[in-house]
Amino acid sequence: MNRKEPEQFILDHLQKRISLTREEGDYFCSLLQVRKVLARQYILQQGDVCRYESFVYKGFLRSFYVDDMGVDHTLHFAMEDWWIADSASFLGQEPSMINIIAHEPSVLLQINKQSLDELYLKFPVFERFWRILTQNFIVAQDKRILNAIALSGAERYQALIERYPTIENRLAQKHIASYLGISPVFLSQIRKKRHK
Amino acid sequence: MNRKEPEQFILDHLQKRISLTREEGDYFCSLLQVRKVLARQYILQQGDVCRYESFVYKGFLRSFYVDDMGVDHTLHFAMEDWWIADSASFLGQEPSMINIIAHEPSVLLQINKQSLDELYLKFPVFERFWRILTQNFIVAQDKRILNAIALSGAERYQALIERYPTIENRLAQKHIASYLGISPVFLSQIRKKRHK
Repeated sequence: MNRKEPEQFILDHLQKRISLTREEGDYFCSLLQVRKVLARQYILQQGDVCRYESFVYKGFLRSFYVDDMGVDHTLHFAMEDWWIADSASFLGQEPSMINIIAHEPSVLLQINKQSLDELYLKFPVFERFWRILTQNFIVAQDKRILNAIALSGAERYQALIERYPTIENRLAQKHIASYLGISPVFLSQIRKKRHK
Repeated sequence: MNRKEPEQFILDHLQKRISLTREEGDYFCSLLQVRKVLARQYILQQGDVCRYESFVYKGFLRSFYVDDMGVDHTLHFAMEDWWIADSASFLGQEPSMINIIAHEPSVLLQINKQSLDELYLKFPVFERFWRILTQNFIVAQDKRILNAIALSGAERYQALIERYPTIENRLAQKHIASYLGISPVFLSQIRKKRHK
């Protein structure tokens, strides 16, 4: 029997990193909950516990922190084929410091902590998957830190849109600026120069 | 037969996170190479491939990036019971962008990538160990990013020395300042106020 499309999509994502038997794939899919969210809908709000790791089947989400002055700081974003969560809150099942919001109508495949812990014990190959996923995330974060040190604001912007060509249409300039750690005015100047 | 002390120390570190049989522990220890380094000795230099994950049995190390102007930016540090490596270089076995230096005479237990890959296949429980270790590292990094946004320089310094009381004696002020993303002059002012 053929699988439904969202399930096939996430299994393809897994099978780029690990080998799975039919049984392992079926069991994994049985743990997933499909969640549809509207643009501007929150899947996590500061103070709540992050109950799910969310895989993006369709859409675009952003995590951010709001400081005491009410300023919104972009931490991460996620598009199709990516995961998003607040790791500290999810792993510790404790109140989150951050928010996660959908910027487009999105379809997520979610797994909760209890299911994931059971999955690791039942099929250790998923330990391997999350180990690889997490290590790749660390590599990306290290690169982001190095870029923040080594590159100018203009170069960081250039690197971002080269890597994610659609991001300019998916994320407001002010959030791109905050992700890159530059002011919106400075980003606007960079873009003007570039488009000349 | 009792184990030698460095081996027992790293097995205790593992067994805080996973359960190991005697056979798994013995096999893991057989893959480790003990490396002694002097203060100011490099275990990784920019342009070289990071060949090992290094566990600190004794000592203190620091990873840093040197920019085009010759400025040294502290990325991470590691003391007893921690691991240090350049993940991008180690996982991809490609030239590193960073340096890792010992600040004290240190004793490391090192494992190379081929041994680690074989270990994962032979005993998948080590996938679990590295999955947990890596996720905890992400939680710590996320917290560091949040602190950089939410706390003042003085508060970040306070949080650092509360968490790592010995760091003031182990790491030069200029490196602590660079790790916290503040100037050495500003750090010196913070310390003066604190010690009054």
